[in-house]
Amino acid sequence: MSSQPLVLLNGEWRASAGSTTFQAVNPRTGESLPGVYPLSPWSEVQAMIQAAAQAFELVRAWPGSRFAAFLEDYATRIEAAAPELVAMAHAETGLPVEPRLSKAELPRTTNQLRQAARAAREGSWLRPVIDTAANIRSVHAPLGPVVVFGPNNFPFAFNGMAGGDFAAAVAAGCPVIAKGHSSHPGTTRLFAELALAASVATGMPPGFVQVVYRLDHADGEKLVSHPLVGAIGYTGARETGLVLKAAADRVGKPIYVELSSINPVVILPGALAERRVALADEYVSSVLMGTGQFCTNPGLLLMYASDASRTFVTTLAEKFAAAPVGTLLSAGVLRHLESSVATIQSAGARPLCGGTRASGSATSHANTLFLADGKTFLTRPQELQTEAFGNVALVVLVEDDETMARILASLEGNLTGTIYSAADGSDDDAYGRIEPALRQCVGRLLNDKMPTGVAVSPAMNHGGPFPATGHPGFTAVGLPAAILRFTKLDCYDAVRENRLPPALRNENPGGVWRSIDGVWTTGNVGA
Amino acid sequence: MSSQPLVLLNGEWRASAGSTTFQAVNPRTGESLPGVYPLSPWSEVQAMIQAAAQAFELVRAWPGSRFAAFLEDYATRIEAAAPELVAMAHAETGLPVEPRLSKAELPRTTNQLRQAARAAREGSWLRPVIDTAANIRSVHAPLGPVVVFGPNNFPFAFNGMAGGDFAAAVAAGCPVIAKGHSSHPGTTRLFAELALAASVATGMPPGFVQVVYRLDHADGEKLVSHPLVGAIGYTGARETGLVLKAAADRVGKPIYVELSSINPVVILPGALAERRVALADEYVSSVLMGTGQFCTNPGLLLMYASDASRTFVTTLAEKFAAAPVGTLLSAGVLRHLESSVATIQSAGARPLCGGTRASGSATSHANTLFLADGKTFLTRPQELQTEAFGNVALVVLVEDDETMARILASLEGNLTGTIYSAADGSDDDAYGRIEPALRQCVGRLLNDKMPTGVAVSPAMNHGGPFPATGHPGFTAVGLPAAILRFTKLDCYDAVRENRLPPALRNENPGGVWRSIDGVWTTGNVGA
Repeated sequence: MSSQPLVLLNGEWRASAGSTTFQAVNPRTGESLPGVYPLSPWSEVQAMIQAAAQAFELVRAWPGSRFAAFLEDYATRIEAAAPELVAMAHAETGLPVEPRLSKAELPRTTNQLRQAARAAREGSWLRPVIDTAANIRSVHAPLGPVVVFGPNNFPFAFNGMAGGDFAAAVAAGCPVIAKGHSSHPGTTRLFAELALAASVATGMPPGFVQVVYRLDHADGEKLVSHPLVGAIGYTGARETGLVLKAAADRVGKPIYVELSSINPVVILPGALAERRVALADEYVSSVLMGTGQFCTNPGLLLMYASDASRTFVTTLAEKFAAAPVGTLLSAGVLRHLESSVATIQSAGARPLCGGTRASGSATSHANTLFLADGKTFLTRPQELQTEAFGNVALVVLVEDDETMARILASLEGNLTGTIYSAADGSDDDAYGRIEPALRQCVGRLLNDKMPTGVAVSPAMNHGGPFPATGHPGFTAVGLPAAILRFTKLDCYDAVRENRLPPALRNENPGGVWRSIDGVWTTGNVGA
Repeated sequence: MSSQPLVLLNGEWRASAGSTTFQAVNPRTGESLPGVYPLSPWSEVQAMIQAAAQAFELVRAWPGSRFAAFLEDYATRIEAAAPELVAMAHAETGLPVEPRLSKAELPRTTNQLRQAARAAREGSWLRPVIDTAANIRSVHAPLGPVVVFGPNNFPFAFNGMAGGDFAAAVAAGCPVIAKGHSSHPGTTRLFAELALAASVATGMPPGFVQVVYRLDHADGEKLVSHPLVGAIGYTGARETGLVLKAAADRVGKPIYVELSSINPVVILPGALAERRVALADEYVSSVLMGTGQFCTNPGLLLMYASDASRTFVTTLAEKFAAAPVGTLLSAGVLRHLESSVATIQSAGARPLCGGTRASGSATSHANTLFLADGKTFLTRPQELQTEAFGNVALVVLVEDDETMARILASLEGNLTGTIYSAADGSDDDAYGRIEPALRQCVGRLLNDKMPTGVAVSPAMNHGGPFPATGHPGFTAVGLPAAILRFTKLDCYDAVRENRLPPALRNENPGGVWRSIDGVWTTGNVGA
C-alpha cells in the first residue's frame, strides 16, 4: 500500500499538489489505516477537468464497442483483484467479507459493468427517432465529462470509479472524474489502478478515467458547475448533495442526486393474519441488513392498530434486541445516526429497544426500534420521517383510514414503497385506498417483498420524487435506462445522410432499436 | 369583452380576490385595451393549486382517451372561435392577422392539440418496460398539476392555456394552471373560456384547467415550489425564468425553462459561392420574420472573412434597411431590445444599419445589422452573444480556422445551430472541423435551411443546453417526446397483475409499444 499522496490525473499517478492529506479509519477498531490521500487543490481539479474534456473530444464519435471493450476489460481485472479489493473495503468500511463484499457486492459490480458494456455495444439506449417525411432525426448523445460522487455505503457497487453511475456514464461515452468517498479511499485507489490499466489496454485516452479523493467544499461547487463538465451523479448525504445541486442547477447542468429515503412499508391486517412469523423475520432482516445502511432500508413501518399488530411489534422488538449488532461505516455515520435518533425520540416516538451506542465495535449502535401512534406521527411528520441511516426503524400504529390517508399524504418522496396484503384478497379494498397516495411519492412500488434488493433490471427504477432524488423521471440503477441521465437529445434537421451519426442513417447494420415514423424496428429506413 | 376582473378557479369564473388590476396595451398604438385583469393574491393561487390537486386525484387513473376527448373538443372550439381569437391576439400583440395568426399559428395550435390527443389515446409515450424474468415493470406516469408560464411571442402556439406545454401536460394526464402572459390576457381569457366549455362537455373535473393572469414574483416562487404542484413549464425572459427555476430546483421540482438562444448560423465559402442571392434572401427573411421575435431567430451569423463574405454582408445590410419594419410585441420588448443593442454595440460590434427606434408604430425598432470580426468577438464573447430579442442580428467575419474554433467553443447553449455548405462537397472538410463544437452546444443541428421553422415532429428537439433550456435531454415541441417532461418513472416490483396500470399488464389490447425483455413490440407479454 502506497503512503505517498498521489492522484490519477490525465493518465498518470502524480504527486498531488495539495499539502493537506487524510487517512481512512477502520470503523471496527477506530484506528487509522496506513494509506495517505491528498486533498486536491483547485488547480489539480481544474487540470482533471481539462484532461477529461480533451478525452471527450477524442472519444465523442467512437462507436459503443470501444467503451464496451474498456468496461469488459475492467470487469475482468476487478475479478482478478477481488481478494485485495475485498480486504481493503473490509478494512475501510467494516462490511463483512462474506457474503456481503465478496459474494454479493463485487459480483454485482462486475455484472453492472458488463451489462453497461452490452448496452453500449448494442446501442438501443440511443433511442433514435426518425421522421422520414420531415427528414428530422434525433438521438441521445453523451453530455461530456461526468463527475461521479460515490457514497459511503457501497464501496464497490456505487463506487465513483466502478459503480452504477460510473458504468452508465462510460456506456454513454463520457469520461469520468470519480470523487471517491473519503471513508474508503484505498478501495477507490485500487479501482482506479485497475481502471487505468484497462484504459491503457483498450486504448482509451489519458483523461478518460481520473480520481479525486477529497476537495474543498467550495471547489466541489466549482467542479459541478464548470462549463466543461457535462453532468454529475451524486449519492450521499442530503446537506452536501443540496449544496452541489444548487451550484449545478444555477448553470443548468444536469445533476442527479440521491439524497434520502425511509422507504415506507405498509403491512395490511390480512397479510399479518396469514404470515405473522415470516413477516417479522423478513422485516427485521431487511432493516438490519448491512447494519441498516441501505438507500432502500425500510425505516418506516405502517400498520393499522390492533391487538395483532401490537403483538407483532413486540415480536419485532424482541428480534431487534436479540439480533447481532453490526459495525457502522464510520464515526460520522454513528454521530449522524445518534442525531437522527434524538430527533425521532424528541418528536414523540418511544424506543422499544436500543437507542444508545453499543459495544460491538468502535462504531456500533444498538439495534433500535421506535413506536408511535398515527396521531403522534401527524403532530411532527417532518421529524418523524427523518432518515436514520443505520440499524433503526420506526413503527407507526395507525388508528383509522383517515389517519392513514393523512400520514401517506404527509410523506416526502422515497425510493420505494411496499404494501403487504393478504393472498386471499381480504386486503384488496384497503390496498385500493392506500395505493394511489403511496404510488405518487415513491419510485418503486413493491408487493409482498422487502425493498432492500435492487435488481439491475431494465425495468428498475432506483429513483423517486425529491428528496429521494432530484428528478423523478430517471433511475440510477438498471440498464440501459440509467445511461440516459448522462445524455442530451441531439436533433438533426435536414442533415445530409453521410453526416449523420450511424444510429440515424438509413441503413441499420447493427440492428439498433429505432422508432421510425412511430414504429419501433431494428430494420433500415424504408424497409 | 368583460371589464370585470375574473379568474377561472375550480371550474368557475369568479371575481378575483385581488385589488390590483391591469390592462393589455395595443403595441401598434400604445393605447390600453378595454379588458381589465386581476393580479391574483396568494390565497387565490393557493385555491387553484388545491383545486388542481383535487382534479388530479380524480383523473390520475383515467385512460388516455379521456384526455384525448378533451383536447379534440377543445381544438374544435378553438377553430370555431378563430375570428375572435385572431382579432384579440392581433390587438394585443401586433402580430399580423394574415398569414401569421390566422393561417399559421392558429392551425399549428389546433394541430398540436390534436397530435397530443392522438398521443394520449395511443399511449406509447408511457414507454412501458417489462422484465418478465424479474417481474419488474416500469412506466411513465403523470406528475400532478402542471403550471405553464406562456411567453409573449406566441399568443396561440405557446399560450399557457392552449400551446405546446399545455397540450403535452394534458396528454400526460396532468391538470394545468396556466399563467397567461400579461401582454395578451384577453387572448388567454378567450382560450380559457373555450377550455372550460370543452372541459365541461367532456366531463373533466372542475380544477382541470385554470388561469392566473398575473401574480407577485414572490408568489410565483411559492407556486412553482408548492408540494402539490407536479412540474412547471416556462418559456420567457431569462431573469424571471432563473428565479423560478431556482425556487423549483431547491425542492427538486421538475421545471422546464426555455430562456434564451441566438441560434448561430455558419455559411461556408462554397455555399456562398453557389447561392449567394438565395442565401441573402433566406437569412434576411428568417431574421426579420415575426419582427425577429422567435426563440429560433438566427441572430448570429458566422462566416469566414473574404471579399465574397464582405460583399454578402453589404447585401444583407441593404436588405435589412429596405425591409418593412415590424411592430414589437410590447414596450417592454422594445426597451429590452434597446438594452441588448447597446450591449452589443458597446462590446465592439459596428451597426451597418438601424440601431435606433423606428416610427412604424408605438413599439418599432429599425431593422438592425451588426458586424464584428472574429478577434473582436473573442474579446467580449459574453456580451456579443447577448440575445437581442427582435429584428437585430450580428454577423461575425472570422479570420481563420483557429478563431472559428475558439468562437464556437465560447458559445453558450442554443436551441439550434445551422451550417450551410456547398452541394459539391467543397466545404466538407470545413464542415467536419466545425460540426463537433457546434453540435455540442445546440439541441437541433440543421443543414442548408434556416432554423425558424419548428416542425411538430416526433423527432424534433426544441430544446438544448443551458441557457437555451434548463435540461438538454428534453424537448418542448414534438409528440410524444414533449409529454415525458411532465411524468415520473413508476416502477412496479412484484406487483400483482390486476393491480398494475393497464399499460403494464400481460394483455395489450390497445397495442401500445412496449419494451418486453429488450424487444419493442405491440403484442402481449409471452406472445
